[in-house]
Amino acid sequence: MACGSDTPFDLGIIGGGQLGRMLALAAIPLGIRCLVLDPDSNCSAASVAEVINGPLDSADHLRRLIECSRVTTFEIEHTNPHFLRTLESEGNRILPAPSLLGLVADKLRQKRHFAEKGLPVPAILAEDVAGPSPYAVPVIQKARFGGYDGRGVARVEPGAEFPLPGKTFVEEAIPIEVELAVLVARNTAGEVRHWDPVEMVFDPRLNLVSSVVTPARVPAGTAARAIDLARGVAESLAPLGLAGVLAVELFMDTAGYLWVNEVAPRPHNSGHLTIESSRCSQFEQHLRAVLGLPLGDTTSMSEAAMVNLVGPDRCEPGRYTVGGRAEACAVPDVHIHLYGKRAVRPGRKMGHVTARAPSAEEALHRARLAAGALTFDTGIEGENA
Amino acid sequence: MACGSDTPFDLGIIGGGQLGRMLALAAIPLGIRCLVLDPDSNCSAASVAEVINGPLDSADHLRRLIECSRVTTFEIEHTNPHFLRTLESEGNRILPAPSLLGLVADKLRQKRHFAEKGLPVPAILAEDVAGPSPYAVPVIQKARFGGYDGRGVARVEPGAEFPLPGKTFVEEAIPIEVELAVLVARNTAGEVRHWDPVEMVFDPRLNLVSSVVTPARVPAGTAARAIDLARGVAESLAPLGLAGVLAVELFMDTAGYLWVNEVAPRPHNSGHLTIESSRCSQFEQHLRAVLGLPLGDTTSMSEAAMVNLVGPDRCEPGRYTVGGRAEACAVPDVHIHLYGKRAVRPGRKMGHVTARAPSAEEALHRARLAAGALTFDTGIEGENA
Repeated sequence: MACGSDTPFDLGIIGGGQLGRMLALAAIPLGIRCLVLDPDSNCSAASVAEVINGPLDSADHLRRLIECSRVTTFEIEHTNPHFLRTLESEGNRILPAPSLLGLVADKLRQKRHFAEKGLPVPAILAEDVAGPSPYAVPVIQKARFGGYDGRGVARVEPGAEFPLPGKTFVEEAIPIEVELAVLVARNTAGEVRHWDPVEMVFDPRLNLVSSVVTPARVPAGTAARAIDLARGVAESLAPLGLAGVLAVELFMDTAGYLWVNEVAPRPHNSGHLTIESSRCSQFEQHLRAVLGLPLGDTTSMSEAAMVNLVGPDRCEPGRYTVGGRAEACAVPDVHIHLYGKRAVRPGRKMGHVTARAPSAEEALHRARLAAGALTFDTGIEGENA
Repeated sequence: MACGSDTPFDLGIIGGGQLGRMLALAAIPLGIRCLVLDPDSNCSAASVAEVINGPLDSADHLRRLIECSRVTTFEIEHTNPHFLRTLESEGNRILPAPSLLGLVADKLRQKRHFAEKGLPVPAILAEDVAGPSPYAVPVIQKARFGGYDGRGVARVEPGAEFPLPGKTFVEEAIPIEVELAVLVARNTAGEVRHWDPVEMVFDPRLNLVSSVVTPARVPAGTAARAIDLARGVAESLAPLGLAGVLAVELFMDTAGYLWVNEVAPRPHNSGHLTIESSRCSQFEQHLRAVLGLPLGDTTSMSEAAMVNLVGPDRCEPGRYTVGGRAEACAVPDVHIHLYGKRAVRPGRKMGHVTARAPSAEEALHRARLAAGALTFDTGIEGENA
């Protein structure tokens, strides 16, 4: 791609997966032209944005992306923060700032930052452990870098081997009653808005968020406290260059106390339902925030629930067709979001479904019904299928 | 484009203007792949769908489009109904059916059809007139074919020359109090749903819809009667092969009576606000209807108003940049839809803005505020600008 200085893209996006795709989709009606960097030229975002084909941490490719774009943002933290700081120092606009990205990409530094700011985080017990756990109670071992969708997190029983290799740390295990997330957006002018807290329902088998419900089914006081904490987290990151959407994941423990788990400085799975549940979606909001526009209205329009569509356990990885659309469309107020990935694999996020309803429970019921109807058919069934 | 039988598109669209673009945008999350036929390879839909570049009435190009698509539909009526009937008779799926298109594309035949079905239409007074109007009262002269966006309609005072050349007809002039539209959708299984009536506010200068408000500000009985008439119109067209969205334009006269003006068997300017005001937009609904899926919920979510963005009177036709985004985004619950057209021209539809609010009046106020802020800057100002 040749990129003359007179034809820049409005927004560069590092990563062209489903988040990049949904950012680019939100950008089209706004007349915002997006350029995506992704190692796969057939990535999710390829049908709605221009693509530079290359590794996310390649200095050459990052330079091309960023020099073609008025502003560059991320859909994924795992890139090259060091080189991004160089590009930033040359006058390129990268938001959120690479220094923030560097902090967040290291879960240990992230956690220490929050602890220093007086935010409630689980205690850090040790670093770079190996062998059997010496603790008398279950603990959590986490990878410092690269964890995603539940990878890089392990619960370790007393005496059991620490399973994760490489740079890790150990934190106390919180007795989790509910997992919540609060999405906050901050624009370049310092304006901050939050959405209502959502409740995350994990699939224990896949160890990733399988569904999200809004509003979270917690006491009003807990919801208010979650919002305060999330805004506090955002405030603590503002001096580091926070702009865009920030997802703050929280635990409510069995005694009703809230803990900050971790953050992602980008649109997040827990906010997909804002497309239908809120006046302004997390995707349009992220665009507004990094492009210096006033933030949109985050007021809730409706109770809603989102269910991820993942590649089935026993599917043969490969090309697929989507089945069950008619059954899914028959469920009231259901909204299908397929990610256009070229191949299905067991456990891979292929799309999501959001449903609105008069109650959160009914919305979850509808979303599960529609999600259960949709299939990714490879036509080559496994022997045991 | 070579199109093997193993890689068909899900939907062919005749026309790649803003309606084709918004259809294709609604198709992406559903995983529906669209192929568009348009004479301009840089048409509005080009950034979100594959394009076959060619005239809308070219037999060769229509054949290529239709043979590459499982189902083919329209964003514009002015194509080649005769040849489409041939393609249909060869087993290709074209919806709504070409015979319906042929009826609707001829406004005189359309009107006679409704009169025969007992639907209230203005009386037809004459055909193919010329010279001065012999009528003692103002009358309406209309082009039988090709009218669009107010072109092909003229109000003619007694004794004044009939201005329109070619095939035209004359109908009585209804003393219009309010113009309404009711959108109805019918799917291939015969399921029918309607949206709430909307009120159309015409710009007398440009003679096109400048804004649309939902719900229409008419008595409840009038709204109910408008829905009955629109569903009656849809029912009368069902045997001709109606599938998809049908926009039914109505007049309420100064005595409160309703008249059927004309119909468009496709998504329509009067339904753009359904993207934000309704649970299912006219675009997703059209896709569902022609692809044999169950229809979506047309329940209203909110009062809303839409204002068209048109090229300014004195602009120099050509490339442009969009200004005023920040001012427009500062208006609460405003949604910008730019059509990505390569060039601006005076009066050309460049986009629209929808706003939601607790009342229709406030929504209209917000939409006008945001629309007034957005500019299409060519950088080459006319001498009088």
